[in-house]
Amino acid sequence: MPIEHSSSESSIVFDVARFELVRLQTEGLCKPLSTEDYVVQSMPEVSPTKWHLAHTSWFFETFILKPHKRCYKEFDPHFSYLFNSYYNAIGDRHCRQNRGLLSRPTVQEIYAYRAYVDEQLLSMLICGDIPSSGEVALLLEIGLHHEQQHQELMLTDIKHVFWVNPLRPAYVERAACEAATGGASRWIAVDGGVREIGHNGIGFAFDNESPRHQEYVAPLEIASRLVTNGQFKEFIQDGGYLKPEYWLSLGWATVQTEQWNAPLYWFELGGEWFNHTLSGVQPILDDEPVCHVSFFEADAFARWAGVRLPTESEWEIASESVDPTQGVFAESGIFHPGPAAERPGLQQMFGEVWQWTSSAYSPYPGYHPGKGALGEYNGKFMCNQYVLRGGSVATPRTHIRRTYRNFFPPATRWQFSGIRLARNL
Amino acid sequence: MPIEHSSSESSIVFDVARFELVRLQTEGLCKPLSTEDYVVQSMPEVSPTKWHLAHTSWFFETFILKPHKRCYKEFDPHFSYLFNSYYNAIGDRHCRQNRGLLSRPTVQEIYAYRAYVDEQLLSMLICGDIPSSGEVALLLEIGLHHEQQHQELMLTDIKHVFWVNPLRPAYVERAACEAATGGASRWIAVDGGVREIGHNGIGFAFDNESPRHQEYVAPLEIASRLVTNGQFKEFIQDGGYLKPEYWLSLGWATVQTEQWNAPLYWFELGGEWFNHTLSGVQPILDDEPVCHVSFFEADAFARWAGVRLPTESEWEIASESVDPTQGVFAESGIFHPGPAAERPGLQQMFGEVWQWTSSAYSPYPGYHPGKGALGEYNGKFMCNQYVLRGGSVATPRTHIRRTYRNFFPPATRWQFSGIRLARNL
Amino acid sequence: MPIEHSSSESSIVFDVARFELVRLQTEGLCKPLSTEDYVVQSMPEVSPTKWHLAHTSWFFETFILKPHKRCYKEFDPHFSYLFNSYYNAIGDRHCRQNRGLLSRPTVQEIYAYRAYVDEQLLSMLICGDIPSSGEVALLLEIGLHHEQQHQELMLTDIKHVFWVNPLRPAYVERAACEAATGGASRWIAVDGGVREIGHNGIGFAFDNESPRHQEYVAPLEIASRLVTNGQFKEFIQDGGYLKPEYWLSLGWATVQTEQWNAPLYWFELGGEWFNHTLSGVQPILDDEPVCHVSFFEADAFARWAGVRLPTESEWEIASESVDPTQGVFAESGIFHPGPAAERPGLQQMFGEVWQWTSSAYSPYPGYHPGKGALGEYNGKFMCNQYVLRGGSVATPRTHIRRTYRNFFPPATRWQFSGIRLARNL
Amino acid sequence: MPIEHSSSESSIVFDVARFELVRLQTEGLCKPLSTEDYVVQSMPEVSPTKWHLAHTSWFFETFILKPHKRCYKEFDPHFSYLFNSYYNAIGDRHCRQNRGLLSRPTVQEIYAYRAYVDEQLLSMLICGDIPSSGEVALLLEIGLHHEQQHQELMLTDIKHVFWVNPLRPAYVERAACEAATGGASRWIAVDGGVREIGHNGIGFAFDNESPRHQEYVAPLEIASRLVTNGQFKEFIQDGGYLKPEYWLSLGWATVQTEQWNAPLYWFELGGEWFNHTLSGVQPILDDEPVCHVSFFEADAFARWAGVRLPTESEWEIASESVDPTQGVFAESGIFHPGPAAERPGLQQMFGEVWQWTSSAYSPYPGYHPGKGALGEYNGKFMCNQYVLRGGSVATPRTHIRRTYRNFFPPATRWQFSGIRLARNL
Repeated sequence: MPIEHSSSESSIVFDVARFELVRLQTEGLCKPLSTEDYVVQSMPEVSPTKWHLAHTSWFFETFILKPHKRCYKEFDPHFSYLFNSYYNAIGDRHCRQNRGLLSRPTVQEIYAYRAYVDEQLLSMLICGDIPSSGEVALLLEIGLHHEQQHQELMLTDIKHVFWVNPLRPAYVERAACEAATGGASRWIAVDGGVREIGHNGIGFAFDNESPRHQEYVAPLEIASRLVTNGQFKEFIQDGGYLKPEYWLSLGWATVQTEQWNAPLYWFELGGEWFNHTLSGVQPILDDEPVCHVSFFEADAFARWAGVRLPTESEWEIASESVDPTQGVFAESGIFHPGPAAERPGLQQMFGEVWQWTSSAYSPYPGYHPGKGALGEYNGKFMCNQYVLRGGSVATPRTHIRRTYRNFFPPATRWQFSGIRLARNL
Repeated sequence: MPIEHSSSESSIVFDVARFELVRLQTEGLCKPLSTEDYVVQSMPEVSPTKWHLAHTSWFFETFILKPHKRCYKEFDPHFSYLFNSYYNAIGDRHCRQNRGLLSRPTVQEIYAYRAYVDEQLLSMLICGDIPSSGEVALLLEIGLHHEQQHQELMLTDIKHVFWVNPLRPAYVERAACEAATGGASRWIAVDGGVREIGHNGIGFAFDNESPRHQEYVAPLEIASRLVTNGQFKEFIQDGGYLKPEYWLSLGWATVQTEQWNAPLYWFELGGEWFNHTLSGVQPILDDEPVCHVSFFEADAFARWAGVRLPTESEWEIASESVDPTQGVFAESGIFHPGPAAERPGLQQMFGEVWQWTSSAYSPYPGYHPGKGALGEYNGKFMCNQYVLRGGSVATPRTHIRRTYRNFFPPATRWQFSGIRLARNL
Repeated sequence: MPIEHSSSESSIVFDVARFELVRLQTEGLCKPLSTEDYVVQSMPEVSPTKWHLAHTSWFFETFILKPHKRCYKEFDPHFSYLFNSYYNAIGDRHCRQNRGLLSRPTVQEIYAYRAYVDEQLLSMLICGDIPSSGEVALLLEIGLHHEQQHQELMLTDIKHVFWVNPLRPAYVERAACEAATGGASRWIAVDGGVREIGHNGIGFAFDNESPRHQEYVAPLEIASRLVTNGQFKEFIQDGGYLKPEYWLSLGWATVQTEQWNAPLYWFELGGEWFNHTLSGVQPILDDEPVCHVSFFEADAFARWAGVRLPTESEWEIASESVDPTQGVFAESGIFHPGPAAERPGLQQMFGEVWQWTSSAYSPYPGYHPGKGALGEYNGKFMCNQYVLRGGSVATPRTHIRRTYRNFFPPATRWQFSGIRLARNL
Repeated sequence: MPIEHSSSESSIVFDVARFELVRLQTEGLCKPLSTEDYVVQSMPEVSPTKWHLAHTSWFFETFILKPHKRCYKEFDPHFSYLFNSYYNAIGDRHCRQNRGLLSRPTVQEIYAYRAYVDEQLLSMLICGDIPSSGEVALLLEIGLHHEQQHQELMLTDIKHVFWVNPLRPAYVERAACEAATGGASRWIAVDGGVREIGHNGIGFAFDNESPRHQEYVAPLEIASRLVTNGQFKEFIQDGGYLKPEYWLSLGWATVQTEQWNAPLYWFELGGEWFNHTLSGVQPILDDEPVCHVSFFEADAFARWAGVRLPTESEWEIASESVDPTQGVFAESGIFHPGPAAERPGLQQMFGEVWQWTSSAYSPYPGYHPGKGALGEYNGKFMCNQYVLRGGSVATPRTHIRRTYRNFFPPATRWQFSGIRLARNL
C-alpha cells in the first residue's frame, strides 16, 4: 500500500498522542453498551462490536508488532485465525458470517488483548530501536485510519443490531430535534475541462486515491444541499417504489425481492413515518437529509427528479470550494444528520451522510496496489461497488478527505448514505 | 393436555419445594457460563441460554400467572412475543432462528424476570386463594417437566455453542476417564403377545404417552447394552459412511450433503479420533457408548450389523425389568456417557444416551391432544420424527419414565443420542 | 426383491401377451402428445415423458437382458447412466432434477430403444434357452408392474407439465360432466382384534407388502365414500387454511411457505372455483371426490371434521368386503375422479383417488429387502413418507391390490390423492 | 431509443431485402436442430431456441405491427405475456428462468407465428400507407439488430444446451483444425490526449453508444493479438486458479464456489485438455484464442501477466486503424475462433471473441435512454456489468461496429469471450 508522501528515516516522528487518542475513541464508543451488545451479528455484513475491538488490535499486532518488534510474543495464537478479516496473504480465517457465533474470547479478554497490544506498541515506539522506522510510521498511520473506519462501522453495525431487536434499544439519549427549515436547494455551476483528480501526496491517503491523474470533465451543475426526507417522501407518494421505470433492472429486482417501500429504518405507524435512530425511534423530520438509502434508491430518486447523480470526479472538483473539516462528524456525538443551514454555496459536502456517486468503483489509471497483504486493502474490491464521497455523522473528522473514496455494493443501506443531485448544462 | 390421573380439589398439595428445586437447578446449570455464552445461537435448532431462562419463566407466567393469579401484572409486555416458542394459540412470536440476534433483554434483566415470576408464583401458591387449584397444580407440574426438558436442551445447546468456537471451551472440568472395559453385549429375550403400551395413569405423564392401549408384539431379542465407540469405529473402518447399501435414501442424501464421516463432535487428529465433550476435547474411549448419532446413522449401523433397531413398543416392554431411576443422569454432573458394567441383564436402559427406536413418532390409537394452547405441546409434531427412549446423561433423573417418548427428526445429532440393537427370533 | 409365491422351473410360462400389452399401453398414453411435450420437467419430482419411456426400457435391459441374455449387446452405453433412476448398486447416474435439460436422445431414438429392447426380450422369451428362467419370469413380472407405476406417473407428470404452462393445454377431450349427486357418506363398522395384515403370497406383490403378520386393531368406523369437493370447500370457507389449530406443525409451515389456500390445480376466477384437469380447465363439481391434496391437508381436514384418517391396517381390513377390480382406473380413459354411486356399503375404495392413511411408511415386522439392486426398490424409502391405499383413475386396473402400499412425502400433491375418513368407536 | 441520424419522412426507404435476409438467417441457424433441441433451457441465462424464434417475432409485432399497422390482429393474445423478455412498460411476462418449462406453443406453431409476422410486416412495408414511416423505419432497423443479437445468443445457448448433455452432441460437423502458429504478440502504441468516444451518428447505433463525447486518455500500448490457449495454460500451470493474489475478491469467491479450474467447456482427459465446441469435443490448440472466460478470469490473467485489460475507450481508439468488417464472423459457419495471422499491426480486433475491457458498463456523459418501452433496451442494465468489444465468431458481420458496447456480468462465461491485454507506457 504505497503512501504518497516520501519519508526519510532521519525525520520519523511517531504520533504517539494520536495513537492513544484514536484507540481511546474506539473504546469510548462502547461506553453505552452492555456486554451482550458486543456479541451479536445481526446480518452477514455486520460484525459484533467485540470483533471490531479485536480486529483493529489484530491489525497492529499483525502488521507492526509481529514483523517489526524484536522478540514479540503474540497474545494468543488463535487470534490470527479469529480476527483476520479478509487478508488471504495472512492465512486462513474464521468465516465472516459466523462472527456472531463466538461467545469466546469474552469482552473482558478482548479488552485485555487491546491493552496488551497498546502497551507493546507504545513501548516499541517510545523505546525506539526500530530497524525500519519509516515503514513502521506508515503502518501506524494506516492502522489508525483503519481503526477509524471501524469506528464508523461499529456505529452503523450497532444501529442495525438494535434495529432487529423488537425492544428497539437506544444507543444514546438525544434531545428531540426541532423541525428546522433548511431552505431550498440551488444549482451550483461547476467548471469543466481537463482536471486533476486524486490525491496530491500531501498527508495520508489510501492507495485507491492514487495516482493523481487527468480527466476530462464536462461542465455541470450540482445541488447546493442534500436531498431531504421531505423530498424523498414525495418520491414515495408518487409511487417511486412501485414504478419500474425509475429503476435500474437490478434495483427493481431488489425492490421486489426485499419488498422495499422506504429507506432502511423507516416505518409507518398510524399514518406517520418514523425512523429508528441511534437515539431510538424518532419522527421523520422533513428537512433532514434522507439517509440509509441504497445506490439503487439514490439513482431511482434522481431519475424520478429528472436529473442524475454526480460522478465521483465531478463531486471531487465541486468540493474544492469547501473545507473538509467543516461538517457534523462522529465527534459531535449526535450520530444523526440534520438540516442544511440557510446560506449560499455548497453545503453538507462533508459529514452528515455519505453521498452516492454514479461512479462504479474502478482503479484510477495507473493504479497499483502495494506489495504483500496490505495490497489487499482496496484493490481487490474494485468490482460491482459504487463510490461514495464526503463522510457522515459516524465518520471521525480526522479521517475524511476531499479525495477519499468509500465504496459499497449498490444495494447497501445500513451505512449513513444519502443523495446529492447533479445535472448537465 | 389431559393428565391421566384424576385430582380432587380437596386434596391439592402444591409441591413448592420441588418448584424451588427445579428452578434453582436451572440456574445452577448456568454457573460455568460467562455473560457472552448466554447470547449465542450456533444453529437454528439451538437456543441461547438466556432464551431458555426466559422461556421457561414465560411458560409459568403465560399458563398460570396470567390466567389464574388475581391482578397479575406482567413483567414486560414484549416478553409474550419474544419468549413464546411455538404456541400459535398464544399469538405471534419472534422467529426461532433469530433468537441469537437479541442482545437485549440482558442476562441480568432475564434473571430479574425469573425472580419476579418465582416470587409471584410462590406468593400465589403459598397464600392459596386459587379458584381452580386442581388445574393450577397440574399446570405447575407440566411447567416443571417443561423446565426439565429445557435443562437438557441448555446442556446440549451450550455443547454445540462451544463446538462451533475454534477455541473449544470446556463447560466443566472433569478428571480424565480411564479406559474401562464394559464386557460383551448379550442378546436378551423379550416375550411377545398382545401387550399394554403407554402410561398407566399413576403419576405425571405427557399426553403423547396416552392412552394406554393394546398392541401385538412378536417375541424378539434385545441387546444387553448400548453400541460402543469401538463398534462404531469398526463400522467406519468398514466404509460405513461410504456404502449406500446401509442407508435409507434420505440418510444417504444427508451423508452426501453434510459430508458426514463420523458422529457429531468426532474429529481425527494425527490418526487418532477425539471428540468434543462438555469437558473439552477428549480422546474417544472404545467402551463408551457411541453418542451424537442421528437416526440415519443408528439405522445404518444396525443394517451393517445385520440386525435392526427396536420399535418403541419393544423397547418399552423390554424395559419392564429395569428400574428407571437407576442410571447416569444430569444430577451426576458428568455429562458424558460411560461404559457398561460387567453384570447380567439389561443395562444402560435409562440415562447415558437416548436410544433411537425404529418407530416414527405417531399418535397412539385414541390419542387426543388437550384443549387450548397446551394442546400444541406434543401432537402437532407427530410427523417426520422418530421416537427415542430412556433419557441421557443430560436428563434430570426425576424427569424420565419408562413410557417417556422423546422425538427428533431423523438427521438430528446434537442431542445425546445413541444406539441399542434388537433382532427377530 | 423376494416375491412371495414359489416357482418351480419346470412350469415357467412367460406371459408374453401381457408384456406386449403393457408396453403398448405405455406408448398409447403418449398418443396425445407433441414431441415437445416429451421433453419438459416442470418440477424436480416430475420426469419428462421421454425419460419414462426410456427408463422403463432400461429396467428390462438392466435386470433381464444384460444379466440373462447370451451375447446381449446394449443399445447405447450412455443409457445406463442416463436412465438409471436411483439404483446405487447399478452405478452413477444422471441427476434427477436435470432430466429436463436433455434434448437428446430424441423421442424418435427413444422409441427405437424401446423397440430394440422389446425385440430382444421377446426373442429371448420365445426362443427359450434361459438358464434361470424362474428368476427371469419374476423379473419380467416386476418389470411390468414397474412399467405400470410409470404409466401412472406419466399421467400425473404431464398433468403438471400442462399446469405450469399459461396456455393450459388439455391432454384429452372429455364431455363436460354433469353435476351428479353422490348421496351422503355413512359410517361403516369395522371389527377389531388381532388380524392378519400384508400379502398372502398368492399372485404378485412388492416386497414392502410382506411378510404377512399379526396386528392388533381396535374396532372402528370408516366412511362409506371419499370426501367431496363440496365438503372440502366448507373447510376452506371455514378458514381451514388460515387456522393453525387444524394442522401438523410441518403442515402449517408448508401452508405458509407455499401459500396454499386450496388443493393443487384449483383456482378462483370471478368468485367461482375451477380446476385444471387432464381435459383442461373445468368447473369444480361438489360431488366429485376432492383430489390433489397432500397428507397435511387430508390430516387437517380430518381434524377440522372432528374425526381422523384410517391407519393402513384399518384400511386394509375394511377393504376385505370390496372387490379391488371394481373402480374407475386408467383403462377408462377418463383420468378424473367422479361422484360416488347411491348404494349401500363401502364405495370408491379402489380407483378414483389414492387415499392417504395416517400410517408413516415403515417396514412390516420381519421385513427384508431382497438382495442386489432390486432390494433398493422399496426399503430405502421407508422414512418421512406416508402410505396411500387403493389406486386412482391413473392406476392400471391390473396393477392394484388390497395390500398395495403406495407412499409419498406428506407435502406431495401432484398425485391423484384424496381423503377417506375414519373414527374411533 | 434515439437513433443518432436524422431521418426525413420524404426519403424513407424500407430495407425489405435486409429484413428478409436477417429473418431467414435466423431460421437457417436452426437447420441442425431436432425438435427437442428447441425446448431446453440449460441454465437461467440460456433461453430455448423456440423462445428466441418467438421473441424476435414478438418484437416486431409489439413495436411495429400493433402500434403502426391498421387493423392488425395479433397472432395469439397469450404471446404478449409469453415472449416479452424484460419490458416492464409492455406488461407482465413469463418468468425468465421458467422458459424451459413450456412445451407449448410447439415449434411448428412458432414457425407459423414467424411466418404470420413476416407476412404482415412485409405487406405493410410494401403497400406503404404508414403514417409515421420514419419511426417505423427506425424500429425496423432496431428490430433487425435485435434479431441479430438473438442469432448470437441462439448459438451460445445451444452450445450450452449440448454441453450439459452427457452425449455431447455436435451442432455442425467441422474439419479438424490443424495446429497453426499465430506468431508472437507485439505491443502496439496508442496515442493519448482528449479524444472523441462514442458513435458519430452515421449509420445505426444503439442508444448506449451515444452521445459522442470527449474523454482524456493517457497513451498506452495494446497487444497485437488475443491471448491464446497456450498462454492461458501457462497461467493454469502456474497455479492461476489456486492463488488469490491474482483475483478480485468477488472473482476469488466465484472460483471457490463454482470450483473453476479452467475456462468453461474445457476438461482434462488422460492428461490432455479438450474442449466442447459447436463441432463437438475437440483437442485444445495452443495458438487459438482462449475463449469462454469470465471478466474475472480475464482480469486475473492480466494481473498474473503483469499487465492489464484495456478500458473501452482505449480499445475504441486503438481500433481506429482496423476495418470492422474484416474478421471471422457468424457468416463463416465456423463458430470457433482461430489463430492470428502472421502479419504486422493489430489483429483479431473484430470477430473471433468478444474482448473484456476493464470498464464497468456505465452511461456515457449526457446519455438519455429513449422514451417508452424501448428505453428499457440498454440503460436499465448499466450496473454490475462489464463492457466487451469487437464481436465474435457468433456475431453477424453486419451487426458489429467500432463503438458497439456489449455487456455481461463479470462471472459470465457462456459467451464467446476472450482477452486482449494492454499496458501503461
